[in-house]
Amino acid sequence: MAQLLSSSSCSLTISSRNNSYLKPFNQCSTPFSIALACNNSKPPFKKLFLREHKPRKGSVVVHAASVSTSQETPVQTSSGDPFKPQRAMVIGGDGYCGWATALHLSNKGYEVAIVDSLVRRLFDHQLGLDSLTPISSIQNRLQCWKSLTGKTIELYIGDICDFEFLSETFKSFEPNAVVHFGEQRSAPYSMIDRSRAVYTQQNNVIGTLNVLFAIKEFGEQCHLVKLGTMGEYGTPNIDIEEGYITITHNGRTDTLPYPKQASSFYHLSKVHDSHNIAFTCKAWDIRATDLNQGVVYGVRTDETAMHEELYNRFDYDGIFGTALNRFCVQAAVGHPLTVYGKGGQTRGFLDIRDTVQCVELAIANPAKPGEFRVFNQFTEQFSVNQLANLVTKAGEKLGLDVKTINVPNPRVEAEEHYYNCKNTKLVDLGLRPHFLSDSLLDSLLNFAIQYKDRVDTKQIMPSVSWKKTGVKTKTVSA
Amino acid sequence: MAQLLSSSSCSLTISSRNNSYLKPFNQCSTPFSIALACNNSKPPFKKLFLREHKPRKGSVVVHAASVSTSQETPVQTSSGDPFKPQRAMVIGGDGYCGWATALHLSNKGYEVAIVDSLVRRLFDHQLGLDSLTPISSIQNRLQCWKSLTGKTIELYIGDICDFEFLSETFKSFEPNAVVHFGEQRSAPYSMIDRSRAVYTQQNNVIGTLNVLFAIKEFGEQCHLVKLGTMGEYGTPNIDIEEGYITITHNGRTDTLPYPKQASSFYHLSKVHDSHNIAFTCKAWDIRATDLNQGVVYGVRTDETAMHEELYNRFDYDGIFGTALNRFCVQAAVGHPLTVYGKGGQTRGFLDIRDTVQCVELAIANPAKPGEFRVFNQFTEQFSVNQLANLVTKAGEKLGLDVKTINVPNPRVEAEEHYYNCKNTKLVDLGLRPHFLSDSLLDSLLNFAIQYKDRVDTKQIMPSVSWKKTGVKTKTVSA
Repeated sequence: MAQLLSSSSCSLTISSRNNSYLKPFNQCSTPFSIALACNNSKPPFKKLFLREHKPRKGSVVVHAASVSTSQETPVQTSSGDPFKPQRAMVIGGDGYCGWATALHLSNKGYEVAIVDSLVRRLFDHQLGLDSLTPISSIQNRLQCWKSLTGKTIELYIGDICDFEFLSETFKSFEPNAVVHFGEQRSAPYSMIDRSRAVYTQQNNVIGTLNVLFAIKEFGEQCHLVKLGTMGEYGTPNIDIEEGYITITHNGRTDTLPYPKQASSFYHLSKVHDSHNIAFTCKAWDIRATDLNQGVVYGVRTDETAMHEELYNRFDYDGIFGTALNRFCVQAAVGHPLTVYGKGGQTRGFLDIRDTVQCVELAIANPAKPGEFRVFNQFTEQFSVNQLANLVTKAGEKLGLDVKTINVPNPRVEAEEHYYNCKNTKLVDLGLRPHFLSDSLLDSLLNFAIQYKDRVDTKQIMPSVSWKKTGVKTKTVSA
Repeated sequence: MAQLLSSSSCSLTISSRNNSYLKPFNQCSTPFSIALACNNSKPPFKKLFLREHKPRKGSVVVHAASVSTSQETPVQTSSGDPFKPQRAMVIGGDGYCGWATALHLSNKGYEVAIVDSLVRRLFDHQLGLDSLTPISSIQNRLQCWKSLTGKTIELYIGDICDFEFLSETFKSFEPNAVVHFGEQRSAPYSMIDRSRAVYTQQNNVIGTLNVLFAIKEFGEQCHLVKLGTMGEYGTPNIDIEEGYITITHNGRTDTLPYPKQASSFYHLSKVHDSHNIAFTCKAWDIRATDLNQGVVYGVRTDETAMHEELYNRFDYDGIFGTALNRFCVQAAVGHPLTVYGKGGQTRGFLDIRDTVQCVELAIANPAKPGEFRVFNQFTEQFSVNQLANLVTKAGEKLGLDVKTINVPNPRVEAEEHYYNCKNTKLVDLGLRPHFLSDSLLDSLLNFAIQYKDRVDTKQIMPSVSWKKTGVKTKTVSA
């Protein structure tokens, strides 16, 4: 620790608020353990110089300086807006979509900072879950990325619900694009019990409010790219448009926000976010893009496939696992595919390689000041039954005997319904979709087979019922 | 304190969570001071018997027993639903609408409990504001009501964001109707600074979530009557329906939630509530009525006019004062009427006597299990300019010289717009509106004149700008 200097272009901050979910973070880290993690860079890259700050109550702050070695030019697009963001803050950058996005943006020449409380890893500990893929610590992930590419991704560990922490990240990194994945993102998690329902809405809504205030105060031009969900719309009996719908009623016409019918406390939290963001665009001239994302599948992107230390998480459990990923794991281990209810539930889906592409397109073509833009971010629609059939056929090609069972639907949702969503805006910006094909299924399935010894079959079945969300806090037995 | 017994039909609980806005409540009360307040009943009414409970951390609990002397029969209506609520919990029952409603329901024969943290009184202290009318403590208000009518209104003092407290109130009072006014209800307050914006959304959204969980857990049949606001709709260029709109789009038709375009963090909190409630009606079969209320004016109801100790609060300041009430005070003290911007802003209005009537009608005609019913609760539409003209004319009749000035609009809102709202559902249930007439204006104006010596003219002008909501917590100078 003799190299402590005062120069600083990169900082790492650990902070937590008084929240029972985060308490372990109050206990686990010291400035020195963090410093060591950061200080583990290898030649030929610039050495990190660390400076210890006096920690404020409940937080540990370490600043580290490094000279950026990035030589790439940021993406240039045909957008007429002269505003070209080059510094992208990825909130929730240690999560499934966030990690893949942070690497992709870094690879494309953006200066990237990850802001994350790492609470997603805590959820796994608390619920006894684990990613199918072994994932490295965020510190090792970033060291590996730097070793492989020479690119530095800055890291700020803390909770965006703590505005003091968030302010520091904005003042330190000065982003001109903020990609906000930093929310509790599981519908079943939000339906476990009252405390998780309240946590989900409080965490997501207040975190996003804080981001909006930080942009207003510290980065007026900064473009917010916010991850919403297709689940905000529910399953109306008319076509779903992208964010807005033009209505003619009693002889008059207006274009209004598309009506929202979310069906979990998680999905509702995203509806609340969308309304809050729309208002601040109007009141404060904030630039925002709401990406109403469908169900993401897949695990490899060009960047995460570069090294085992960069591998992304892959969730197959009943809480965090999404339908297609779960089906592939089930097929791999000989567990019947679990179709909830009748299986007519239809949703939009996309490959994680398209998630990162969509975010990049949104950043490179920013919303105008005051504009609240909504893109539906998915590439194909499938019903759950269709997915099960696709996995069954792909499994047969690999010699797997794939069965399907219908289990009682733990959710409250229509099991047979009309569903037709528009998704042209991202294609208009240049999205080239990866479609779900047999070859992709092969690859996804092979991936699941590769790691099948890590599967905990106890985690596969749905464990949370929408009808039974209780007021007593649930704990998970061993 | 020798009369402590174990019987209990009425309880008074003081509780607080760890919130800076509520800290004074941690310091001010002891079981004995509360007991004395409750024990101040006079003959000929049954003596209150007090029982001291061991207070849990941060709370003081005192239970008091009394025999109800109510002889009236609860309201009977033509509704076909055999479910007839008779025990109404009024959350926020010490506030402007809540107090009038609690007395009205008690007067109509309902067993009533008030649940309130009294934080509205704290806001006045913190912001240096005061009601035009002197208002008594909640304890004295309830003693007076009992003295005059023989009716006991139970009192639970605490914060509904504290679920442990709320659970106790439900288990103790066993309501079959909950009228929920218990939210931070000022748009300007929510726009003062970041901490008030966050407080407003957190307090309102989490409080309502807790109420929904309490109903699910402790009172499955209980009917939630929730105070929403007409401001949830914004000012669309088409007619505003009551909660839902039937849309035909690309040849298909569905009836969907009416699109929401709220324009303050407060109004947004009500939008969030509406979405959350709609979901729980669907998922948990909760009965709910969302009363999208317009701007309330007036101060006297049959009940609050019975005695000075029962007088309702009357806010005329730039934070909590509503347009018409503020104009009357301005006319009374010779201050020009302050029209924000062009004054073409049009809203729905209603007399507070109609607020209490509407709530009673909603309770007496409950929603069905699983039904999320929305009523637009106002009786007339006026633009701000029309209101100013009405007050000017009424003032002239009383010999007042009333001037009007246009001040810069502190809000972000359309100042000239189409506005046509439906409001037939409450009329269909039997609402007999009190319309804003010259005579009412006379009475409102006379009331303002009666108390004009209490007016603090420094509080009249708008002090909060929607465009300037900052991240630093604002304090009010003396």
